[in-house]
Amino acid sequence: RYTFCINHPLLRDKGLGLARQMARRYGGNPSILGWHLDNEYGDEPDCHCRICVAKWQKWLQKRYGTIEALNFAWGNVFWSLEYNRFDQVPTPRHTKAFHSPAHLLAWRRFRSDCTVEMVGLHAAALRDNGVTRPVTTNNQSLWNPRTDYYDLAKHLDVCGTNYYPPYGPACRAGELGLATVRSYKQAPFQVHELRCGPHGVPGLENNTPAPGEVARLTMHAVANGADGIFYFRWRTCPFGCEQTHGSITDYDGRPTRTYREVAVIGNRLKAIAPVLEGTTVSSDAAILYDFPTRWIMETGISWNGPKDLYIQRCKLMYEALRAQGINVDAIGRNQDFSRYRLLVVPFVSAMDDTLADKLAQFVHGGGTLLWHPLSGAKTVEASFYPARLHPTLGRLFGITIEDYATAPLDSTHTFTWNGQSFNTGGFFDLLHLNDAAVHARFTSDWFADRPALTELRTGKGRALYLASLPPRPFYESFFPALLKECGIQPLLNTLPPAAVEVAIRTAPNGRRLLFLLNTSAEPQTVSIPDPRRDIWNDETVQGSVILPPQGVRILTAP
Amino acid sequence: RYTFCINHPLLRDKGLGLARQMARRYGGNPSILGWHLDNEYGDEPDCHCRICVAKWQKWLQKRYGTIEALNFAWGNVFWSLEYNRFDQVPTPRHTKAFHSPAHLLAWRRFRSDCTVEMVGLHAAALRDNGVTRPVTTNNQSLWNPRTDYYDLAKHLDVCGTNYYPPYGPACRAGELGLATVRSYKQAPFQVHELRCGPHGVPGLENNTPAPGEVARLTMHAVANGADGIFYFRWRTCPFGCEQTHGSITDYDGRPTRTYREVAVIGNRLKAIAPVLEGTTVSSDAAILYDFPTRWIMETGISWNGPKDLYIQRCKLMYEALRAQGINVDAIGRNQDFSRYRLLVVPFVSAMDDTLADKLAQFVHGGGTLLWHPLSGAKTVEASFYPARLHPTLGRLFGITIEDYATAPLDSTHTFTWNGQSFNTGGFFDLLHLNDAAVHARFTSDWFADRPALTELRTGKGRALYLASLPPRPFYESFFPALLKECGIQPLLNTLPPAAVEVAIRTAPNGRRLLFLLNTSAEPQTVSIPDPRRDIWNDETVQGSVILPPQGVRILTAP
Amino acid sequence: RYTFCINHPLLRDKGLGLARQMARRYGGNPSILGWHLDNEYGDEPDCHCRICVAKWQKWLQKRYGTIEALNFAWGNVFWSLEYNRFDQVPTPRHTKAFHSPAHLLAWRRFRSDCTVEMVGLHAAALRDNGVTRPVTTNNQSLWNPRTDYYDLAKHLDVCGTNYYPPYGPACRAGELGLATVRSYKQAPFQVHELRCGPHGVPGLENNTPAPGEVARLTMHAVANGADGIFYFRWRTCPFGCEQTHGSITDYDGRPTRTYREVAVIGNRLKAIAPVLEGTTVSSDAAILYDFPTRWIMETGISWNGPKDLYIQRCKLMYEALRAQGINVDAIGRNQDFSRYRLLVVPFVSAMDDTLADKLAQFVHGGGTLLWHPLSGAKTVEASFYPARLHPTLGRLFGITIEDYATAPLDSTHTFTWNGQSFNTGGFFDLLHLNDAAVHARFTSDWFADRPALTELRTGKGRALYLASLPPRPFYESFFPALLKECGIQPLLNTLPPAAVEVAIRTAPNGRRLLFLLNTSAEPQTVSIPDPRRDIWNDETVQGSVILPPQGVRILTAP
Repeated sequence: RYTFCINHPLLRDKGLGLARQMARRYGGNPSILGWHLDNEYGDEPDCHCRICVAKWQKWLQKRYGTIEALNFAWGNVFWSLEYNRFDQVPTPRHTKAFHSPAHLLAWRRFRSDCTVEMVGLHAAALRDNGVTRPVTTNNQSLWNPRTDYYDLAKHLDVCGTNYYPPYGPACRAGELGLATVRSYKQAPFQVHELRCGPHGVPGLENNTPAPGEVARLTMHAVANGADGIFYFRWRTCPFGCEQTHGSITDYDGRPTRTYREVAVIGNRLKAIAPVLEGTTVSSDAAILYDFPTRWIMETGISWNGPKDLYIQRCKLMYEALRAQGINVDAIGRNQDFSRYRLLVVPFVSAMDDTLADKLAQFVHGGGTLLWHPLSGAKTVEASFYPARLHPTLGRLFGITIEDYATAPLDSTHTFTWNGQSFNTGGFFDLLHLNDAAVHARFTSDWFADRPALTELRTGKGRALYLASLPPRPFYESFFPALLKECGIQPLLNTLPPAAVEVAIRTAPNGRRLLFLLNTSAEPQTVSIPDPRRDIWNDETVQGSVILPPQGVRILTAP
Repeated sequence: RYTFCINHPLLRDKGLGLARQMARRYGGNPSILGWHLDNEYGDEPDCHCRICVAKWQKWLQKRYGTIEALNFAWGNVFWSLEYNRFDQVPTPRHTKAFHSPAHLLAWRRFRSDCTVEMVGLHAAALRDNGVTRPVTTNNQSLWNPRTDYYDLAKHLDVCGTNYYPPYGPACRAGELGLATVRSYKQAPFQVHELRCGPHGVPGLENNTPAPGEVARLTMHAVANGADGIFYFRWRTCPFGCEQTHGSITDYDGRPTRTYREVAVIGNRLKAIAPVLEGTTVSSDAAILYDFPTRWIMETGISWNGPKDLYIQRCKLMYEALRAQGINVDAIGRNQDFSRYRLLVVPFVSAMDDTLADKLAQFVHGGGTLLWHPLSGAKTVEASFYPARLHPTLGRLFGITIEDYATAPLDSTHTFTWNGQSFNTGGFFDLLHLNDAAVHARFTSDWFADRPALTELRTGKGRALYLASLPPRPFYESFFPALLKECGIQPLLNTLPPAAVEVAIRTAPNGRRLLFLLNTSAEPQTVSIPDPRRDIWNDETVQGSVILPPQGVRILTAP
Repeated sequence: RYTFCINHPLLRDKGLGLARQMARRYGGNPSILGWHLDNEYGDEPDCHCRICVAKWQKWLQKRYGTIEALNFAWGNVFWSLEYNRFDQVPTPRHTKAFHSPAHLLAWRRFRSDCTVEMVGLHAAALRDNGVTRPVTTNNQSLWNPRTDYYDLAKHLDVCGTNYYPPYGPACRAGELGLATVRSYKQAPFQVHELRCGPHGVPGLENNTPAPGEVARLTMHAVANGADGIFYFRWRTCPFGCEQTHGSITDYDGRPTRTYREVAVIGNRLKAIAPVLEGTTVSSDAAILYDFPTRWIMETGISWNGPKDLYIQRCKLMYEALRAQGINVDAIGRNQDFSRYRLLVVPFVSAMDDTLADKLAQFVHGGGTLLWHPLSGAKTVEASFYPARLHPTLGRLFGITIEDYATAPLDSTHTFTWNGQSFNTGGFFDLLHLNDAAVHARFTSDWFADRPALTELRTGKGRALYLASLPPRPFYESFFPALLKECGIQPLLNTLPPAAVEVAIRTAPNGRRLLFLLNTSAEPQTVSIPDPRRDIWNDETVQGSVILPPQGVRILTAP
């Protein structure tokens, strides 16, 4: 397992041949609901075999045209790394020294392209041979950014994901993964592997679902856009590397307690299916999520900072927004921003004119854009823009980056916003104001009094530049005000209790399904002023509505 | 060093040829007391050379007969790992992905067999050429489980071990290693490398023996069954990789303070030899200790938990039992359990019918068996039994494993036994009672009130199932009661002070030598009601007997 | 980069050919002030190619003459490592086991010799072709001990170093690196890479210079002997592996705030150049600094202790001495000790007769020598002297090492000196006094009352043996008394404030330039009784003189 080469002609020949034969035989079979391509495409470790090396060099030739263009794009003049011919360019294997960032970034692009190409061939092998039902496959959630899933999704009818969040208090730590898979096609998706029991390994934390927790986790996936749920796995395999995997039935086929829970879930889902069918998750706020940015972060901690900084910042802002009781989307760089009132950019690299122009248009058209340091500073070849910011963005925010400072992410540096003082750290852009207004100022160290948050209103919208990387408390104060200014209403009239997840799916006719999910082991109370029908528990509620531990309610107009 | 292949024909030819010549020349020499085979057999890193690969594949063919049988036994259908021929099965070198647990387990069995085979050839080369004196070799204590020493011991006349415990307060941390070497042949043994001085390396902890500590350590080894003591080393080598090793004489051959201590020890041992000769350590309680279990723990932390969990649990229970002032044995799966009143199983894997039947017979015959979670759950091929427990054991304990949960080993989960509450963690078996009685119940989380300790009386004995992995405090309360129920008397009338080690060696005529050893830097007092002869200090004692720091007493009837 | 072989004929042919051509063309060019050889010679990872293997074996043959001599020198009889021919001796690549310490030490000597040889060839290629201006190159500061810079310096006219200390409170942590580069030729040097701005990486600590800090850092380098300052780098490269490097001008060539600082520095330096010209740093106290000792420390933590122990102990003593407000030198084993009143040896290995005799002569001639455990214990082949100390040194200190003990470096062991109790740890030599006097005694554990500090007066000087490795507080109490006894005056009448660096450069005519540098963000006050001219700020000062944050003053007689 994981020792094959995805570019090997034999694999492609035999694998696609098998797919073609299955398509011909079962393509028209009415019992088949859909087609799942392979398992976890793109998860095998990088291959550096001769086939891959040759394909890589051909890919480079296509991308850059001439070796001089490649040398220029990668900055190979630095440290005298210039090549004379494409067949001299190695794949970036382990080295005694360093590979250049641009080299590593190109390699990630290439590997992603290889996987996407293979998925395309696989899907075509089915469709060209009689398959008409939806084609899907299971991508990883957030941990594996090796394939640009936005790119891969073009070959799928329905996106899919694995989803293994921790149980217990940290259960929402991976939720951004549902927003991202929802974003690849901006449509409901399927969870192809949903966690459904404890792994049988001594010492594991956050590993055992409380009674009701698998049901709550299931409806959490549905609330966030899942239209299909597959638990992994039905029966545990007693041998091999997954012998302790949680499951619905045990080694002996005997139902586990999860079985009884998912049986109830299945019956209830069947009952509410007519109401659920066709509903989608729609949001006024989005987080920009980007694979090339993740790739650049992996080109070296010495010039990018901690590897997980980007994904941690994305999660921080996604979670802080969701805690305001609103739906939140992820959005890719090639998608339509104009549907949102608020676009938060925790960080984005590989900036090009197209993306910069789109961001400017978003603001011109009435959107609010929240920016952070280092975003938009690098080109698509992982080199810096001369002004440390794409020129279009400099104009958009009305600032120039004059200087900068760094500190640990948990430093005690401070800034003041709206009369309150907040800790901040990590990176400080020291901005020169061209035409931006100042909303907050740093209050520590030699750069005290420099702008910490600026705003420039342009067209119908505004561009906010937050000049450092504050931890979550700032956003908990800032987002309520920002959402209000953007006219984004919380889904409830009030903030939900911290332990209650709130989400809405909306039908084409505008009917809203309000999901309330208790993520804790204690009962929670939510105020529901008007009478509502709880279609999950089949009862009518109003006033102080109680959610039992791990409880689920789906409320709609009566 | 350590770069040879133990299976290489040249090594075997030259090595055994040398042994044969030495045997022929010195085999009848009356000055030779015994023969020591090589040094630390089985310690070299795994070899994957062509000779080993071929031998491995032949070994597999012998074990499994057909490749289909191997595929079935290893569960190779999982992840499509089936082989077509034995010569396709690789040795488990470093991989980009994972090796299957059964593959890794078979490899450990093979490597152990190779070492045992070579030791057998080596011993035969001596005995076939005139050697009649005892043959021995030095095994490692607990840290290297690569060779099944129970298996290897069949080629030896006397077992041997290296023994390098820490000095100072933690000095008994490796004591289980003396019980295990004593168990391989269930007989006294020799310590071939006993620590005898500080290593000369700045910064080392627990590295310097206090005055008297080498003597106390020596007699600690004797008390636990050593009939021979060799200090390592006589004179420190000023060059090479052991240039800072502690020793009896220094680089210049000058006696160190250890020299003076061991000179006294030697004289005293000579004086008491007639009394010591022929005495053995005999125990009413034993810990099951098992190499295949250690091998399975090494097949991957993702399906077994922390690598050192097994040995830590063995130590915990051995030490908690010894702290009750009794002798405690280790015992192997192929040995006779019936000599014990109490058998504690911290964990055992690779369960087969033979072992399960032996355990049942032990209980039927009057023994008390203490069990822990996950024990007996896996087959000899490292796959799970369908019911998560060998069926014979399910009947023996009168329970079915219905469900389970996990938590960190130091979690704050609790259970109540005998009116007291104890912390517990790691793994929780949630038991269905068939005909077992309940002695303790969990008191935390959603599985509160489920059985935490059950008992089924069968025949003359009883089978206790402790359903989680509590830390030491529980055993400190539980063992005194359990030992009393088993009719196991402490060696003294009372519990010894925590810093005093107590052990007994018994002569064939029943005469008992009571060892009292002060492991601390403070004097300790032990109450000895009747007059006793202290043969170590050559004096008669009675009443409040004082042990000076690092003091040793050996008491016997006057 | 860093993937070449420094011994490869092609590299030498082309590289030296290039040097020759440049020399012929520009050697007489009056605009050229000096010649810088390559960049960071000796920093590439070890090469084990065939060319290196052959050269290594030839080097061994030259060093040892016969293979028997090599076997004897390395102690190859231990573990049966004897070779029969030089072409059997491998380079010490990764191994499954261990390489012998002497093997590793020889390898380090060889690699250092290769680099020194290449630097010599490079310098000769220039000088032989018309270069008359000074030749220099940039060595690393303290982190890379792979080349014996004392040896390399013989090929240079001026030594050079990179210098990248942390900004902020820890800014003096690397200062010993200036003393060492000053010592290679016992002359002023150049800083070829001086840190001059923050690296643009989120999360970095101690990375952003406060206003004035680059100026203070510059003058700190000058105060410690720099006669040339080159900032790295002029303009940041937007691509490649150093794309976030701090710089004087930004990606766009726009001046950073550092530019403005260094512009002022340049003008001021130009103004004081006539006074500064020809001044040198002269010290009465020195730390022995030694590359073979660093190499031996790298031959294995199991027989040497922590890898960085040596350099940390050097830094500790250097910093504690400097904190007394005096100049302190580093000094190499082949240099002249007689110019110092006090020589501190934190640790030295690879002791030979020559060095032992030099140390004895230093004491005889009136010097005070402060010694520490394990120093002088090993030969030039990394094996121990029989008495654990070179015999000449045993006589010099009037002691014999009778026994020893170890403990963690931060242990709570104690000794008493001058009525005060101090913590100590790491290693304890337990000394037998031959003719030494005792100044301090241990006060803990079983070796309480054994000597902790001894002294033997010989000729005009004295030899002090400190028998353990105490942390800094002891030296803070001990050094003031020791300096007084040695007649070493602080540069000011009083101790400077902890945040103020004090150093003196002296002109050939005896005129002294007193540098006062405020390393903190708070103003500092220094008492200057007599009127002095501050040539840096071009003003006259007297009395309570204030240094602003990061402030610099250079005082001289008016």
